[in-house]
Amino acid sequence: MREVAIIGVGMTRFGEIWDMSLRDLVVEAGLGALTDAGTDTVDSIYVGSMSSGQFVGQEHLAPLMADHLGMVGVPATRVESACASGGLALRQAFMEVASGMSDLVLAAGVEKMNDGADVTAVLATASDQEEEVYYGVTFPGLYAMIARAHEQAHGTTEEDLSWVSVKAHRNGAKNPKAHFRREFGLEDIMSSSMVAEPLRLLHCSPVTDGAAAVLLCPLERAREFSGQPVKIVGSGLATGALSLASRPDPAFLDAVELSGARAYEMAGMGPEDVDVAEVHDCFAIAEICCVEALGFVERGKGKDAARDGITDLGGSTPVNLSGGLKSKGHPVGATGVAQAVTIVEQLRGGAGELQVEGARTGLAQNMGGSGASSVVHIFQGV
Amino acid sequence: MREVAIIGVGMTRFGEIWDMSLRDLVVEAGLGALTDAGTDTVDSIYVGSMSSGQFVGQEHLAPLMADHLGMVGVPATRVESACASGGLALRQAFMEVASGMSDLVLAAGVEKMNDGADVTAVLATASDQEEEVYYGVTFPGLYAMIARAHEQAHGTTEEDLSWVSVKAHRNGAKNPKAHFRREFGLEDIMSSSMVAEPLRLLHCSPVTDGAAAVLLCPLERAREFSGQPVKIVGSGLATGALSLASRPDPAFLDAVELSGARAYEMAGMGPEDVDVAEVHDCFAIAEICCVEALGFVERGKGKDAARDGITDLGGSTPVNLSGGLKSKGHPVGATGVAQAVTIVEQLRGGAGELQVEGARTGLAQNMGGSGASSVVHIFQGV
Repeated sequence: MREVAIIGVGMTRFGEIWDMSLRDLVVEAGLGALTDAGTDTVDSIYVGSMSSGQFVGQEHLAPLMADHLGMVGVPATRVESACASGGLALRQAFMEVASGMSDLVLAAGVEKMNDGADVTAVLATASDQEEEVYYGVTFPGLYAMIARAHEQAHGTTEEDLSWVSVKAHRNGAKNPKAHFRREFGLEDIMSSSMVAEPLRLLHCSPVTDGAAAVLLCPLERAREFSGQPVKIVGSGLATGALSLASRPDPAFLDAVELSGARAYEMAGMGPEDVDVAEVHDCFAIAEICCVEALGFVERGKGKDAARDGITDLGGSTPVNLSGGLKSKGHPVGATGVAQAVTIVEQLRGGAGELQVEGARTGLAQNMGGSGASSVVHIFQGV
Repeated sequence: MREVAIIGVGMTRFGEIWDMSLRDLVVEAGLGALTDAGTDTVDSIYVGSMSSGQFVGQEHLAPLMADHLGMVGVPATRVESACASGGLALRQAFMEVASGMSDLVLAAGVEKMNDGADVTAVLATASDQEEEVYYGVTFPGLYAMIARAHEQAHGTTEEDLSWVSVKAHRNGAKNPKAHFRREFGLEDIMSSSMVAEPLRLLHCSPVTDGAAAVLLCPLERAREFSGQPVKIVGSGLATGALSLASRPDPAFLDAVELSGARAYEMAGMGPEDVDVAEVHDCFAIAEICCVEALGFVERGKGKDAARDGITDLGGSTPVNLSGGLKSKGHPVGATGVAQAVTIVEQLRGGAGELQVEGARTGLAQNMGGSGASSVVHIFQGV
């Protein structure tokens, strides 16, 4: 397998974007990545989207993207793994370059969620239709059950959850592309309306439109396109049981641990080598579970990480400096690629106020549903 | 890139299968392929499905499949390219084995179409939502326009279309897994009810449930699992403009030609080397366009191929001996993988009454929408 680098990144602003359609979003992000790399052609395209069919009545997104990028003919493939769709698009692009099949491969992610669909019902199709949805479960409900299980196992409180959101918004306020660029104090969060006990509104990621894209090529060609290429040194994908009730321990995300272990193994690294990370905080409890499963803190200690600054700028492993899904926003299919964009910016030293000094190794973890699929990538500045 | 072989195939019966759910179908096909190869584990899974979210409210199909195959943890990825989803699942699996990333990779395709959804509306999401669906176009309407364009360019008549259906049903009647196992005469077809002029009911593929799966491994390991491995010698993917009105010539499927050219190039072969083929005959006119675009007949001569026996058993290039999408049925996401199953059976010499004597090289072509994506694979007995 060949070594692979990211040579260009692009991203729309995240938010309720009423003046842009699905195709506008994905084209803006894709052209951004191409422009960043100084090229106007690619050999192949991947696009991750969870539910463009249900959200805006458009499946068959891959030829649509090739067409509207002015690249009719170019091979294009859509991948879906619920909210991990973007991370999987990146993984497939990585594999296509690594295999030697193609040189320049664009990986994009997009979701247009604000367009009239019943968002909660659409998102629920990422959980188990027969064993969960049929009985009325929604995603806030599923993550609330994970939070309750974590509380029982480790004493995680509503205040612990709230510190994750305080950190998310403190950082997201400094991210010019974030959906919500404002800080919230602990009191604000703990007095926001209850969605599914113990999760309150400000523990939940918003309904966001947006797209992101990264352009990949063989490492040996990277300097043709970029003065600051970023190497992909690890890629790990894992599945877990789709329904929460089928998991050995609902307070622990097995698929996240396994995908991380696979990426660490490919990279020949461990969690101690990671200078900056983006993890999938669709709900505050998710960040707590993910930092445990990825080994940034011990199992059961995730609840203290945000409050104690371990996962904030200056801590041992800064996590979600972009604001994460909570503050930056969570256009579900775009999220995994947007995480990669954030990490590339960090490794290029271009993250402004949010920069981790001397960051050399970064990690992005993106998951689907209540954790039934998870994909981890590890990146390194060259 | 490593050489890749198919070592196992599995397929459900095709039809209106009211006693099996989406997960039952995909598990039966997957277990069939594993059993055929004599293994109970894989390194990675791909599953193609066009619209499981819209048809049965279930996205996130990849972890569902891993879970219900008893393989929680195994990496799994869903791909979608409308009715070409199955072919793309096969292509991604091929790439993963070729890259050296994994050894045993399962590629499945599934669709559960008969479950209460508005099928015509769901299928329409494979066309251009903003430029076609919004104005009321459905798939029979789109292919009727292709048929009219072909009539204008080449004089293709309703009788020409009908001979394609005669051939499909004559062969499909002998396929034990086909949706419709009965023959129809020319008169039957030409007097069936009009759907969208000039396409009648018996020019259109049915609404079918089903699943298919193939298991891949590096060629060098194939004999561990199969006495009759089949090598994948070419894989080509191409896109075309999503909306029919944006194509240079609506009577010609550019993406099919381009995907074929790419597969032929990888295989170092041409259409004259193909002993048996399955092409995407979602409507009778589609088979006519595909045999032209793949070079089995000259451009404009596709209309004569079925009537003259060129594409029937004993002809120069037998096409759709399985009965094709018309008679075998068209569970959209399963079709591309089911085509591969048919070709493998032919190259193993196990196609019974439908066997092409001495078949050594086979081709499968699977497309999405009105031809905006097309994927071609070329197979060879080892």
